[in-house]
Amino acid sequence: MTLTLIPLPGIPLIQPGDDLAEIILAALQRASLQLIDGDVLVLAQKIVSKAEGRLVDLSMVIPSPRAQQLAAETAKDPRVVELILHESREIVRTRPGLIVVEHNLGFICANAGIDHSNINSPVPAGEGPGMRADEFALLLPEVPSASAANLRKKLHTVSGAQIGVLIIDSHGRAWRMGTVGMAIGFSGIPGVEDLRGTPDLFERVLQVTQVGVADELAAAASLLMGQAAEGTPVVHVRGFPYPLREGNLGELLRPKDEDLFR
Amino acid sequence: MTLTLIPLPGIPLIQPGDDLAEIILAALQRASLQLIDGDVLVLAQKIVSKAEGRLVDLSMVIPSPRAQQLAAETAKDPRVVELILHESREIVRTRPGLIVVEHNLGFICANAGIDHSNINSPVPAGEGPGMRADEFALLLPEVPSASAANLRKKLHTVSGAQIGVLIIDSHGRAWRMGTVGMAIGFSGIPGVEDLRGTPDLFERVLQVTQVGVADELAAAASLLMGQAAEGTPVVHVRGFPYPLREGNLGELLRPKDEDLFR
Repeated sequence: MTLTLIPLPGIPLIQPGDDLAEIILAALQRASLQLIDGDVLVLAQKIVSKAEGRLVDLSMVIPSPRAQQLAAETAKDPRVVELILHESREIVRTRPGLIVVEHNLGFICANAGIDHSNINSPVPAGEGPGMRADEFALLLPEVPSASAANLRKKLHTVSGAQIGVLIIDSHGRAWRMGTVGMAIGFSGIPGVEDLRGTPDLFERVLQVTQVGVADELAAAASLLMGQAAEGTPVVHVRGFPYPLREGNLGELLRPKDEDLFR
Repeated sequence: MTLTLIPLPGIPLIQPGDDLAEIILAALQRASLQLIDGDVLVLAQKIVSKAEGRLVDLSMVIPSPRAQQLAAETAKDPRVVELILHESREIVRTRPGLIVVEHNLGFICANAGIDHSNINSPVPAGEGPGMRADEFALLLPEVPSASAANLRKKLHTVSGAQIGVLIIDSHGRAWRMGTVGMAIGFSGIPGVEDLRGTPDLFERVLQVTQVGVADELAAAASLLMGQAAEGTPVVHVRGFPYPLREGNLGELLRPKDEDLFR
């Protein structure tokens, strides 16, 4: 039993409308990798968002009074705050530079996962790179699990393999420093594996052991995704040790009324 | 660049006083693995705790009035609650069955990491397995980072390789369901890698990107550690993509006064 993670080489900068399935299949070929049953592909949310055109021109965003007030309180760009509010169900905590929300997708994250620091903006040819980069923000994919399912279907059609697709983002955490890769949507893999009922070493039944396996895999793949120039936004995983099944993000989301830290 | 994780086969049930370095070297040999510079060994805390004799006979524990009261409030064994209080600096939250604490080691975790469900109790020969298992609890290693450093030194002496050693536990989390592997002590690996200052795609300097790489590695290795009968408590890692250095657990612990979720 070996778990192997390989970042796919040569993934180009992604533009709106790009076909990620095609791009990944080409990269797999470059890496001499053939998809087989049980493989999982892990994608950084950024390339999915870009392919889906989730780049927002900030000059088109009119901040509401509420966004302006929250921006003043948190020392953030009011246009970005407007987007954060739009992408969120609820504000959980704020402090200067940070707005922790319950995202429309159901999970808790900072700034609604909106990336305003490292955007591949659609700069017209002839302009220097990055000249307008600050004027754009990148939202999360609208429904990452649907993006994952769509990609999985295309890759299955070409390869014939039963694979999983996992889309991840880097999340900060309560209590601990440093971001870790976290699942924001997936298709064909379990979210939480419930080990309740597995006999332990004494053949007694364990009380409860529920493992967030999709998040564990997200963290593993994240290790191989530099966030900067050397970025490798797609990681091929072989040997994921849990049987593939049609899991869903909801398995990983703690209901608000059972959460001691909301 | 490939990250490979291999659970070491044939690790026996660990007893107090066992030499983990010897046991791991034998298991590496069985797996035909030779340690090389940059390798990391990830250990489940349970085997470190057992080797260090952190098993407590609950019949010897006299719960204090405070422990008895908290046990009544949380429907837990008062003797286990006494141990939880002893191992902790502060109680963070409680609910039936659960006491979330700041452990003496500095991190937030449930029930002070004390395992009362799946203990390899020192049953005398002749008795059936598990007959007395409920009467014991297993505390975390006293200083996991020191345990890791000690093991690393021994493995370095034998192998000559510059390696890292990481000790992990399964932690529940705010907001999300399912436990994930989390670093509780290590030697020779970074805790948080600070990517501030890395130029992004536009050669601007990123605002801030701090990655909890030790926790990401903990989660990755945890994927391969079944918690039950098939347990594989040691995982060999090759290809950890960050340079090894002498990191420390403190890098991963958010100071209380900067924590929005205490």
